[in-house]
Amino acid sequence: VPDNSPPPASPRPPTIAVDGMGGDHGPAQVVAGAIAAAAEHGISVVLTGRPSQLRPLLGTRTPGGDIRVVPADDSLGMDEGALASWRRPRSSVAVACQLIRRGQAAAVVSAGSTAGIVATARLRLRSLPGLMRPGLAVVLPTGPKPTLLVDAGAIADPKPEMMLQFAQLGVAYAQVAFGVEDPRVGLLTIGTEPVKGNRLTRRAHELLTAPPHGGLPIRFTGNIEGSDLLSGKVDVIVTDGFTGNVALKTIEGAGAFATEQMRAAFQGSRAARFGALFQRRALSELAGRMDAETYGGAALLGLEGTVVIAHGASTAKGITSACGLAADLARGRITERVRERLGPGHRGGHFLRRP
Amino acid sequence: VPDNSPPPASPRPPTIAVDGMGGDHGPAQVVAGAIAAAAEHGISVVLTGRPSQLRPLLGTRTPGGDIRVVPADDSLGMDEGALASWRRPRSSVAVACQLIRRGQAAAVVSAGSTAGIVATARLRLRSLPGLMRPGLAVVLPTGPKPTLLVDAGAIADPKPEMMLQFAQLGVAYAQVAFGVEDPRVGLLTIGTEPVKGNRLTRRAHELLTAPPHGGLPIRFTGNIEGSDLLSGKVDVIVTDGFTGNVALKTIEGAGAFATEQMRAAFQGSRAARFGALFQRRALSELAGRMDAETYGGAALLGLEGTVVIAHGASTAKGITSACGLAADLARGRITERVRERLGPGHRGGHFLRRP
Repeated sequence: VPDNSPPPASPRPPTIAVDGMGGDHGPAQVVAGAIAAAAEHGISVVLTGRPSQLRPLLGTRTPGGDIRVVPADDSLGMDEGALASWRRPRSSVAVACQLIRRGQAAAVVSAGSTAGIVATARLRLRSLPGLMRPGLAVVLPTGPKPTLLVDAGAIADPKPEMMLQFAQLGVAYAQVAFGVEDPRVGLLTIGTEPVKGNRLTRRAHELLTAPPHGGLPIRFTGNIEGSDLLSGKVDVIVTDGFTGNVALKTIEGAGAFATEQMRAAFQGSRAARFGALFQRRALSELAGRMDAETYGGAALLGLEGTVVIAHGASTAKGITSACGLAADLARGRITERVRERLGPGHRGGHFLRRP
Repeated sequence: VPDNSPPPASPRPPTIAVDGMGGDHGPAQVVAGAIAAAAEHGISVVLTGRPSQLRPLLGTRTPGGDIRVVPADDSLGMDEGALASWRRPRSSVAVACQLIRRGQAAAVVSAGSTAGIVATARLRLRSLPGLMRPGLAVVLPTGPKPTLLVDAGAIADPKPEMMLQFAQLGVAYAQVAFGVEDPRVGLLTIGTEPVKGNRLTRRAHELLTAPPHGGLPIRFTGNIEGSDLLSGKVDVIVTDGFTGNVALKTIEGAGAFATEQMRAAFQGSRAARFGALFQRRALSELAGRMDAETYGGAALLGLEGTVVIAHGASTAKGITSACGLAADLARGRITERVRERLGPGHRGGHFLRRP
């Protein structure tokens, strides 16, 4: 019988490496967010980037103690994608990944470009044993309970076996971050019958219903459709990165459309003008809630350390909440949990599990 | 220089074959909707199905004139999919397709199961020369101008060349039904750069930007993301049937989520209670608008006659509007226009175009 009880939480406050140079708003917002995170979440922060830019932003605070700066001479532009990760081994995000490899940080937070961060992390960090590809996990704005979607765009053309692993990554995340002991997993496809879908999802459905080979069992509850993304029917939604990303952006666009329509309807009515101020606030909140930019960060899972990608437009507050997520995942020993869930390798290898 | 001017409209009122047995609400709603359509849209209607069930529903109206009944002994269940189309050559939707083949109807309307109708239509109707697969076109609830999405779910795993043809189908539809002379076509994918996306969309992007081989030129304006589905940025959105169906259902789910959230917010506030009645109406309208069930019908394009699929839950009103769409497409000679746009065959054949 597999042991589903959570591994003991790490006693020491985790150290989070924060890419000081990523994001549309530049280092000022990142540093402000990191300072707040150190206080709010009781973590140590290592900022990577150009010391000449980062140190002045720390203000009267003496570098050291819970915030340090580690120099990185280079940085990825917001418009740079996967290729830049090869060309820039000294970028601030690459240096942050190095801190994980050296055991000096438990997780990385960056507000840089998703493609650049994913590529850099895959290049600079080891995959966990047996993992084929890391997956990007995003929390959907459902309520009252959250739902996790994996993959949100790391791999556009995964093999079905990778989707089975995405399920394992998602289950580990939901256990750690949502506190759900045995998360329900659904497969995003078209039609709820097993035979419905495309070639990829039909095969993924077979793998999800088959007995686990090496990995821990998954509580697969079947296919779900796009209309169920926000219904809270499952805790973890498995999909390929292409469909996942289209779905996320569609939610965002639909949210903007809905609030726009409601705003127009309210402006046209005398009766509705009474509650106008209130409605404006409610509408803004709704648009914000359905906007992926405010979800708080996507987590790249399956590598030797977690990489949380704050949206590029993140202000200090977005960075703080991304650091909070990174700290929660690190405290819950997400990496060990994923390693355990994946089991002793999926690609026909006969690894001996490390004690 | 290709002639983009519309073919002359057909002078005679089109005859629409209506599947009398399809739909969740049974023949009563279908017949009521068909009667209203004959009057409102100036069309002739042929109802297919069991005369013993259909004739009484025509009431005092003598069968004949603008409404006739053609017997069909069998029908597809709402839960029956593609296989049933082989087993039931005398189903009401198969008989309706036969009317197109015999030149006795210009289009078919059915509120049966999408999978069953698509399979029956593909089996009973000839494809237009050179067409690889028919595509399902759905009008998105954008405003003020509509946007068409092709494919909404006919082919879950299309080849890239099929997606080029979906673009041609969509352009023909937008010209006829929206009156847009040179519709803008966008490709649904992730990221706006040509290199972004999955294998399928990258290849489709190449085909859409290449000079047309045989077909008429397409005004391809590039990649769009999920957030642009409802922004009215393009007139026609091309996608594979899997992604298209997920996106449609996601819009529906997001609409339901948004109205639910707003309703909860309004109920909690004293200020907002003043406009409560108005708000309830506005919220219902919004939810309805974003619900695929009310879009008015999906059109299967590329066969020798158009097949309009009204949603299974269609009431009489839904059937009437589906008949209206079928009549508009028939009057605009959609089939001839698609034939012209596809050109003399895409599969390496050297067809001589029929005069």
